[in-house]
Amino acid sequence: MKRESLDVVGIGNAIVDVLAHADDAFLEAEGLKKGAMTLLDEPNAERLYARMGPAVEVSGGSAGNTAAGLASLGGRAAYVGKVRDDLLGEIFRHDMRAQGVRFDTPPATSGPATARSMILVTPDGQRTMSTYLGASVELGPDDIDPELIAGTKITYLEGYLFDPPLAQQAFREAALLAHQAGRKVALSLSDPFCVARHRGAFHELVGAGVDILFANEIEICSLYETRGFAEAAAAVKDEVEIAVLTRSAKGSLVLGRGEEHPVRAVPVERVVDTTGAGDLYASGFLYGLTRNLPLPLCGRIGSLCAAEVISHLGARPETALKDLVKSAELI
Amino acid sequence: MKRESLDVVGIGNAIVDVLAHADDAFLEAEGLKKGAMTLLDEPNAERLYARMGPAVEVSGGSAGNTAAGLASLGGRAAYVGKVRDDLLGEIFRHDMRAQGVRFDTPPATSGPATARSMILVTPDGQRTMSTYLGASVELGPDDIDPELIAGTKITYLEGYLFDPPLAQQAFREAALLAHQAGRKVALSLSDPFCVARHRGAFHELVGAGVDILFANEIEICSLYETRGFAEAAAAVKDEVEIAVLTRSAKGSLVLGRGEEHPVRAVPVERVVDTTGAGDLYASGFLYGLTRNLPLPLCGRIGSLCAAEVISHLGARPETALKDLVKSAELI
Repeated sequence: MKRESLDVVGIGNAIVDVLAHADDAFLEAEGLKKGAMTLLDEPNAERLYARMGPAVEVSGGSAGNTAAGLASLGGRAAYVGKVRDDLLGEIFRHDMRAQGVRFDTPPATSGPATARSMILVTPDGQRTMSTYLGASVELGPDDIDPELIAGTKITYLEGYLFDPPLAQQAFREAALLAHQAGRKVALSLSDPFCVARHRGAFHELVGAGVDILFANEIEICSLYETRGFAEAAAAVKDEVEIAVLTRSAKGSLVLGRGEEHPVRAVPVERVVDTTGAGDLYASGFLYGLTRNLPLPLCGRIGSLCAAEVISHLGARPETALKDLVKSAELI
Repeated sequence: MKRESLDVVGIGNAIVDVLAHADDAFLEAEGLKKGAMTLLDEPNAERLYARMGPAVEVSGGSAGNTAAGLASLGGRAAYVGKVRDDLLGEIFRHDMRAQGVRFDTPPATSGPATARSMILVTPDGQRTMSTYLGASVELGPDDIDPELIAGTKITYLEGYLFDPPLAQQAFREAALLAHQAGRKVALSLSDPFCVARHRGAFHELVGAGVDILFANEIEICSLYETRGFAEAAAAVKDEVEIAVLTRSAKGSLVLGRGEEHPVRAVPVERVVDTTGAGDLYASGFLYGLTRNLPLPLCGRIGSLCAAEVISHLGARPETALKDLVKSAELI
C-alpha cells in the first residue's frame, strides 16, 4: 500500500451555485418540487434565471462542498470535477484551491459552459435546486488519476454523478481503483429523485462497492422503498460498513461496527439556508473518521459543520471550521 | 416640470463584489489600507485574487447598492452604470432588474471586462476593498438619458465616479440636467481616499451643485481637513440643503432645514460585514425623503436598512426591506 498522502478525494459535478430568495408561490408557478434537485437544459435554465430574484454566486457542488469543508477543518482534501475554461470555471477553481483543496482536473476547452445550479431559498430555510449540468457532464474515466485515488484514504462520490453517463463511468472507475488500493469508498445518495432515477444501480453499489454511505431520511427510504425510517435503517445496517443517516433537526443516526449511535443536531439560532447541510455533515464525519475518532464523535463534528453552513446563505463554510470544532472542544 | 415617474436614479461604477474573509495579517502582507478602497490594474487584481481566500460573488457598486435597497423598500429606482457584455455583466444586470431597478445602460461590447471589487472582510466585520474598474470607466456623458434624469426626483451620484475621467463628465452632465429640470442632486463622498484624490472638485460641488450630501465621519473630516467631527459638521451645515453624516455604531447626524437631528444606530447581534452600510443607509434615507417623511424618520429608516446589510456577507439586502421597515412600524 502506498504512503497515504490525502484524507479524502471528492468526485462530483463541479457547479457554481446561484442562490436567491423565493417564496412558495414562485416555486409553484415555476413547477419546481420543493427541496429537490431538478435538471434543466440551457434554455430552461436561462428562462428560470431571468425570472428569479437577485442572486449571490458561490462555488458549490455536493462533493465540492464536502471537500471544501474537510479542508476548512484542516484535513487534506482533493477534488475531481469538470468545469469549462470560462469565468465561472475560474471562480470554482479559485475557491477550491484558496480553501486548500487539491484540484487538478483540466477544464474543458470546448462544449457547454461551467455548470450552475439555481438555488431558491424559501423563508423556511429550505432550498430547491434547478441545475444546468453544463461542462460537468464532460467528466470521464480519463479524469480519474489512479495515483491520486490510491494515495487517498477515502474516495467520496456523490450520487449526482450518476446523471451524466460519462461521469457515472468515472465514478465506477474511481471506486474500483480505490478498492484495488485497499482504500475506502464513500457514497452520498444526494437527492431522493436522483435515487429514484438510479435505484437499481445504487442498490447494487450499496450491496457491494460502498463502504460508507451517507443519506438523509427521505433518500434512504427512497432507496429501500420503505415508508418508515426505522425500516430503512434496519435494511441498510448490514449492507455497508458504516451508514450515516441524517434527519435535519432530528439529528442523525450512525450505524456501524455492530453499533447504533443517535447523534443530536447542533441547534442554530436561525436556519437561513439549508444548502450544503448534508455535504458539510459529511465533511465533519469524514474528518473524524480519517483521524480514527469514535463514530459518535464523528457524527457530532458533522452536526457542528452542518450547523455552521445552514446559518448563512451558501453551501461553503464562512468560518474556519477547524476553529469552530476546537471551540466546541470536540478535538 | 415633467410628471415624476421615479424616486431615485443612482449613477455609479457598476461592480460585482468578490467577498472573502481575511485577517489583518493578510491585509498587511498585501499592503492594503484597512477600511479603504484601493484601485488596482488588471494584473494586480489577478495577483490579489490568486492569493485571497474562497469568495462569494454578489452584485455591488455603491450607487448600485443604494438603488437596489431603494427598490427593496418599494421605491421606484433606476440605475446608470457600465458593464461589459460578459458573464459578470449579465449577473449585474440580472440582479438589478430582478430587484425591480430600471437599468438600461447598454453594455460595452469591447474593451475591459466588467468591474470587480475584491472585498476582504476581517473578523471585526470591517471591509477593505481593492477594485479593478474594468468596463465601468467606459461610462460617459452619452449614457446619461436626459429624460430619465428629468423624470426622477433625486439623482444620486457616488463620489467614486470621479476616478474614471469620462464618468466624471457623466456625473457633471447628470447633475446639470437634474437641476435644469428642477430636481435634486445627492452625492455620496464614498471613501476618504477618494475625497483626498478629488478634494477640490468635491468642495466646489458641495458648495454649489449638491443638494443632499451623504458622508461618513472620516470622509467629512477629510473633505474639510478638520480633526474633529463637530468642526466638519459645522462646516457642511450651511453648504447643502441636507447633510447626512453617518458614524457607524454611534449612529448618524442629519443636518437640514435649520435643524440638527442625531439618529441612533439600530443594534445588530453580530456585525458580519460592513460592506454597503453607508449605501443602504442612503437607500432608507432617500426612501423617506422622496415620501416627504420628517428628517429624523428618514434617518431611522436608513439606520434600519444599514443594520440589515451589515448582519450578513454582501452589500445587497437579503430581506425585503419593505417588510423590515413595516415590522419596525416606521411606515
